[in-house]
Amino acid sequence: MKTVILIGANGKMGQAALTGLKNHRIITASRSGDGCDHIVDITSKSSIKGLFERVGKFDAVVNTVGYCEYASFSEMTSAQWDTTIQSKLLGQINLVKVGLDYINDGGSFTLISGILNVKPIPLAIADATTSGAIDTFVQCVAHELPRGIRINVVNPTVLEEAWGVYGEMMPGFQPVPGALVGKAFERSVDGFITGKVLFVDA
Amino acid sequence: MKTVILIGANGKMGQAALTGLKNHRIITASRSGDGCDHIVDITSKSSIKGLFERVGKFDAVVNTVGYCEYASFSEMTSAQWDTTIQSKLLGQINLVKVGLDYINDGGSFTLISGILNVKPIPLAIADATTSGAIDTFVQCVAHELPRGIRINVVNPTVLEEAWGVYGEMMPGFQPVPGALVGKAFERSVDGFITGKVLFVDA
Repeated sequence: MKTVILIGANGKMGQAALTGLKNHRIITASRSGDGCDHIVDITSKSSIKGLFERVGKFDAVVNTVGYCEYASFSEMTSAQWDTTIQSKLLGQINLVKVGLDYINDGGSFTLISGILNVKPIPLAIADATTSGAIDTFVQCVAHELPRGIRINVVNPTVLEEAWGVYGEMMPGFQPVPGALVGKAFERSVDGFITGKVLFVDA
Repeated sequence: MKTVILIGANGKMGQAALTGLKNHRIITASRSGDGCDHIVDITSKSSIKGLFERVGKFDAVVNTVGYCEYASFSEMTSAQWDTTIQSKLLGQINLVKVGLDYINDGGSFTLISGILNVKPIPLAIADATTSGAIDTFVQCVAHELPRGIRINVVNPTVLEEAWGVYGEMMPGFQPVPGALVGKAFERSVDGFITGKVLFVDA
């Protein structure tokens, strides 16, 4: 049994991840903190540091959040780009950067991207660009992590559980059950792979 | 003959691009402006806008610059990430965003990334991550560009002409002649392809 910090635990992706983490002790966190053990805002390094300080020892960080702004490229403002980069890109990078000071030997980080970097759709250029950045970051930074620490990223298509929200903007996409995405989180946390992009698509 | 704005014209990558643009009218620009027609700082949207206002009509933008900070992941500061993102990622995105208001119908943008997102080396995590972001951005945003406007990115390995500077940090890499990289810029500007990552590697 590992101690796993699950960020965004109450979101649909967090719930999907949870299905793959049943054998572990789960410590939950989210931006609001509602129904979770801890509050964390991944856009703030001090908030991230505070979370790890409060938790103490842990073996894995599973992140399922990263806020993105949606607009056509011509309408996307600098502020919208910045908001997306601060959360989905730098927020996740900082989880790893700060987390390295706290995570146990042989621990793992599992980040989240999303299928729109390889299957582009209208309005999602900031989501796609930062997903591509995170997929690249994980594949490259894996070589630098010390003490047997691993890192992977789950890159899922839309969840069946979220189809009601996103389906209209994703014609021709086949949603997948959250439990299938949970398997990818499980492979990352319980396996020995590192530097991998775990696509879950149909 | 097309009117092409070449940014970073006096750098080694700019000189490489120039070898592929001999059939065109070239307007040069760089951050210092030394030996160039214009000054431009791609980290400033107003500087970019000023360049396009001064040039007037043009058919292509070829960018060969994007400043990156180099450090190990554990040593890379938030300021270093920000500097890299503001230049190599958002600087290039803004060239396209602002340029769309000025470029002729059927024009093209050619951006620059670099091979380290697919061949990682120590100290280059910010370079690699932003290269991956730009490669993704180009592949996705191509679908959104109006008026027959195209976009590609050249993703080269190290140039023979730059081997003296970078060779020591890139053991086992085979440098390529600038003129070969120039062919990729030529394919982007003179071809009909769009949304492509033009790798030049050996």
